[in-house]
Amino acid sequence: MLAELRTPAGSTAAVQRLWPLMEAMYPICRSITGDGVRRTLDLVETVIPLQRHEVPTGTPAYDWEVPREWNIRDAYIADESGRRVVDFRAHTLHVVSYSVPVRRRMTLDELQPHLHSRPDRPDWIPYRTSYYREDWGFCLRHSDREQLKPGAYDVVIDSDLAPGHLTYAECVIEGQTNDQAIVYTHTCHPSLANDNLTGIAAAAALAQGLRAGARPRLTWRFVFGPGTIGSLVWLSRNEALLPRVRAGLVIGLLGDAAPITYKRSRRGDTATDRAAELVLVGTDARIVDFEPYGYDERQFCSPGFDLPIGRLTRSANGQYAEYHTSADDLSLVRPDRLAHALQTLAQLITVIDENRTLLNLNPKGEPRLGKRGLYGSVGGVSPGEFEHALLWLLSLSDGSHDLVSIAVRSGIAWATLVEAATRLEATGLLRAAHRIEASPQERN
Amino acid sequence: MLAELRTPAGSTAAVQRLWPLMEAMYPICRSITGDGVRRTLDLVETVIPLQRHEVPTGTPAYDWEVPREWNIRDAYIADESGRRVVDFRAHTLHVVSYSVPVRRRMTLDELQPHLHSRPDRPDWIPYRTSYYREDWGFCLRHSDREQLKPGAYDVVIDSDLAPGHLTYAECVIEGQTNDQAIVYTHTCHPSLANDNLTGIAAAAALAQGLRAGARPRLTWRFVFGPGTIGSLVWLSRNEALLPRVRAGLVIGLLGDAAPITYKRSRRGDTATDRAAELVLVGTDARIVDFEPYGYDERQFCSPGFDLPIGRLTRSANGQYAEYHTSADDLSLVRPDRLAHALQTLAQLITVIDENRTLLNLNPKGEPRLGKRGLYGSVGGVSPGEFEHALLWLLSLSDGSHDLVSIAVRSGIAWATLVEAATRLEATGLLRAAHRIEASPQERN
Amino acid sequence: MLAELRTPAGSTAAVQRLWPLMEAMYPICRSITGDGVRRTLDLVETVIPLQRHEVPTGTPAYDWEVPREWNIRDAYIADESGRRVVDFRAHTLHVVSYSVPVRRRMTLDELQPHLHSRPDRPDWIPYRTSYYREDWGFCLRHSDREQLKPGAYDVVIDSDLAPGHLTYAECVIEGQTNDQAIVYTHTCHPSLANDNLTGIAAAAALAQGLRAGARPRLTWRFVFGPGTIGSLVWLSRNEALLPRVRAGLVIGLLGDAAPITYKRSRRGDTATDRAAELVLVGTDARIVDFEPYGYDERQFCSPGFDLPIGRLTRSANGQYAEYHTSADDLSLVRPDRLAHALQTLAQLITVIDENRTLLNLNPKGEPRLGKRGLYGSVGGVSPGEFEHALLWLLSLSDGSHDLVSIAVRSGIAWATLVEAATRLEATGLLRAAHRIEASPQERN
Repeated sequence: MLAELRTPAGSTAAVQRLWPLMEAMYPICRSITGDGVRRTLDLVETVIPLQRHEVPTGTPAYDWEVPREWNIRDAYIADESGRRVVDFRAHTLHVVSYSVPVRRRMTLDELQPHLHSRPDRPDWIPYRTSYYREDWGFCLRHSDREQLKPGAYDVVIDSDLAPGHLTYAECVIEGQTNDQAIVYTHTCHPSLANDNLTGIAAAAALAQGLRAGARPRLTWRFVFGPGTIGSLVWLSRNEALLPRVRAGLVIGLLGDAAPITYKRSRRGDTATDRAAELVLVGTDARIVDFEPYGYDERQFCSPGFDLPIGRLTRSANGQYAEYHTSADDLSLVRPDRLAHALQTLAQLITVIDENRTLLNLNPKGEPRLGKRGLYGSVGGVSPGEFEHALLWLLSLSDGSHDLVSIAVRSGIAWATLVEAATRLEATGLLRAAHRIEASPQERN
Repeated sequence: MLAELRTPAGSTAAVQRLWPLMEAMYPICRSITGDGVRRTLDLVETVIPLQRHEVPTGTPAYDWEVPREWNIRDAYIADESGRRVVDFRAHTLHVVSYSVPVRRRMTLDELQPHLHSRPDRPDWIPYRTSYYREDWGFCLRHSDREQLKPGAYDVVIDSDLAPGHLTYAECVIEGQTNDQAIVYTHTCHPSLANDNLTGIAAAAALAQGLRAGARPRLTWRFVFGPGTIGSLVWLSRNEALLPRVRAGLVIGLLGDAAPITYKRSRRGDTATDRAAELVLVGTDARIVDFEPYGYDERQFCSPGFDLPIGRLTRSANGQYAEYHTSADDLSLVRPDRLAHALQTLAQLITVIDENRTLLNLNPKGEPRLGKRGLYGSVGGVSPGEFEHALLWLLSLSDGSHDLVSIAVRSGIAWATLVEAATRLEATGLLRAAHRIEASPQERN
Repeated sequence: MLAELRTPAGSTAAVQRLWPLMEAMYPICRSITGDGVRRTLDLVETVIPLQRHEVPTGTPAYDWEVPREWNIRDAYIADESGRRVVDFRAHTLHVVSYSVPVRRRMTLDELQPHLHSRPDRPDWIPYRTSYYREDWGFCLRHSDREQLKPGAYDVVIDSDLAPGHLTYAECVIEGQTNDQAIVYTHTCHPSLANDNLTGIAAAAALAQGLRAGARPRLTWRFVFGPGTIGSLVWLSRNEALLPRVRAGLVIGLLGDAAPITYKRSRRGDTATDRAAELVLVGTDARIVDFEPYGYDERQFCSPGFDLPIGRLTRSANGQYAEYHTSADDLSLVRPDRLAHALQTLAQLITVIDENRTLLNLNPKGEPRLGKRGLYGSVGGVSPGEFEHALLWLLSLSDGSHDLVSIAVRSGIAWATLVEAATRLEATGLLRAAHRIEASPQERN
């Protein structure tokens, strides 16, 4: 249950439970399409149910289209003795993602333009892609590159780049209403741990938690898809849903040592942004304004959609040394940091889901709380926090304040405020400000 | 005159003049209804004329209704020797307000649930009420309570709780316009001085002051009524007036040692709030945001009314040790603090009354002030504050700035600005932005 | 070219080039009308082309009208020996501007009410005017005044105050659009250097610079006219143009030692104000809110016009000791300070002219920048400032953000942002948000 994930013990247990999933996903060569993604989703499906989607090559998505599907079996550079000096079987990062097939003998000089290494980090293999320009290449440790001797090399990339499909999946948890909340995490990075696997594992844990509890108020969609083209495809296939999207998060990079970073949606004051402020202000988390560079919030928050979707990571935009290198492996992910991020996300999702705008049906003067059993009967003494919560709710439930804004304004603890709101709804003093459309399932 | 109350000497003299009124009111057993209120209003009427209102038991006021009227003649607890160990004749606080009649013999154990005392303040009698639940009880010093010996006690409360009336009164000072300003002070507390009598005395002094001067611009209503049910009854009987309410104050607790506290109206930027900022910023006064707990501003600012009514007290919400105990007697009220509060209130009422929105009738370019005798004729020298006041008024009198906002923006002293505005109105360069409806009296 | 004026070297060269113009203008006795103004404009016309306007005495301009024209040939006070103790030929400030003709013998006592001097600055001649009240007077050093002996004096002012014209001039630089920007500088001060000549010289240099470069986007009007009545006359004759005024500056007092002061327009957030913030924040310049006292921005920003016109000076409102005295001569003007002001103005005019609101024509998701040659093709590395500029422009070009607001929000350098915007316009991803009406010249 989400309530458990909100506790240190519960989130720690969840990380222990999901660690083997991350270990199993780590060696797989993922990209924006291909069997690596399918095998990854197979593993996620051992934990939560998924609706899988296969979208054919060439399908348009706004200014983009689904590219050809890429699969790779083997790749290497071998010296004249036949020794593999660079070997895909040793690390998936060795091949530039989306490299076209190659099979030829080349001199070192001919080969050099196809090699990528980082002189500043000579022991790490960098991560490079060439999705949208036909090319090929190898990534290697700079220290290894410097050992390469002039001479002839056999260069082999045994890959396919052919019409096929883009694969993504959703775990949908039906809510009491048809209002939607989105959690998006990217699934396109090969053997990188913090920047991919932590997001996938956290999304799976949160979906598990939500499924285990009472039916949420919002319908939650956890989307596992590739970066950029994945969110564009999802958007293009779900436009009818977008007017109902009330909140959402892009998540990832959750296990490094940095404090939490929440990046506001483009609008900056959406329900998601305000919920994040309620949960994070006073912690060591950083809240930063929207900027158009980043992860899939770039697409969700493009001006033609401008959705109420923020982003939660630890390091922002990969500002950690190991980012996009082989050093971003499972030893970089700290279980306690991932558990803390999970706890924060569970709190944030709870607030987003419980938040609502209520209307005081008795707005002229205060209603008599005493006769409804909500207030002590002996006068002359000061009320406690619960009574204050009742007064704040009655005062601000004029249709223009949701519970999050009342919590921020009053300083009253979220759980107390939600309890008071629920009591006032039960007595008929407050009701939902907007007619809530039942979800399709509810109507049947 | 209000102008006198704005001076230290004038406000000090007013407190001296009204002190005997407070002394006469102190021993009376007030409650939300009953003869104690009527006797109190008789005393106020020796100082200012009052319109009295008697509202029958059962009259509805939104979610509430006028309760039965409560009167009390005597009450005591006597020990077996006949000695009164608790005696209403010694202090009105000894009886829980609205106690039903009682006459019986009880053991101490049976009596205990009906006793109220404060172990943390063993020498003070607390103040308790039970308006809306039929009950009875005694309040006493905790030190006395500990002296009570087991045994039988004669318990007598000689009270009536019967159909009758709720009593409140208004002192109305007709203005040049039918626009309304409200000053509300509660009259329901028995022998408590700071929390009741200072508000009543200050309201009386301010009404006296306004009556003695030139006809004010607004029609001012000073309302003397019980807390909560009194303001609800007043609101329910004056709904037609509410759209014309331009400003207002709930006042009370004006004589303790704390600095002035102004509590904003719910909207937070009404004419009253901005006038209070003009008067109080730069003094040691505190300005606090609206919260739904407090005095009768709770009703005036409930979301169905949302009136431009703030609250002025010293200690906010009774945050002084003696609050609602017998220690809140006349020795707690410091005449110099009450005089200073009166001075502040007189300044605030002056600003509220003189404030208005004017329109520049010559908005294209500056008008020639020199030919109208408003500006020095020799050029090349810098203008003084009066000339600056003229320029600010002409610049900002576009219908969206009232004099208070021009004073805040320009930093020009209120009296200078009002003088300049009056001169510009006299020359025809400015006129009232809104057609002012004459008050009913004016029209006849 | 404006680009040169934006550099230290270019602005320094411009000041050297224009210094002889200031020297030639200095001795001329200017006023709000008369041949002094005409001779001044003749000098300006040696540098830039001017459209001259002669507006007859009596022409109405809102609450004002064009006064009679004032010309002066000679003026003096001679003692009984015939020695000129005050002599207009020595300094134009000696005569109160707009003094009526006088020719009589007076005692010192009779003369005293017509004398102006500054005891606090005994060695400086003050500057005084009497435009709108028929009067006459002399200004002199207080030290000289104290030497005057009792006795008879011959007082002569050989002036005309007669129907004639008010003279002003414009240098218009046609833009690509009919949208207008105004630069106004006053031409009515006699031998005062910082407070008149620096503004005239700077306006001339900026107009030169704009004329020498590519056609600007806006149509720029540099107006040389007298204070107050000049801007009122210009406004009254150009009302049809006012709805097209997008930005503007009143300039003057640019050569003293004070830091730059930018005074916001009355609205406070116009395109001019925001451009000034972009250029000046982070420098030692002060940005101050609008107040209705000052120079011709008083008229442009009066509530009936409320134009987007700010003011750029060094000392605000003449807050330097030598202001309006003979000590404001060319020795007060520091060439390096004037050059720095010119540089700032050239930057500000550049930003105002290049600023525009664009619309993202591909707002759903990011467009593919790579296939348009705007973005590197190898993925996995972080983009540089130019790529960030592209993303910011696409994100915020929703019709409600102009380039200045995007520059402020993103922190991207102006030149980079404009270059990126131009590239995006060229690819068709952005276009102007508003249909731009071609300027009249363009249409022919």
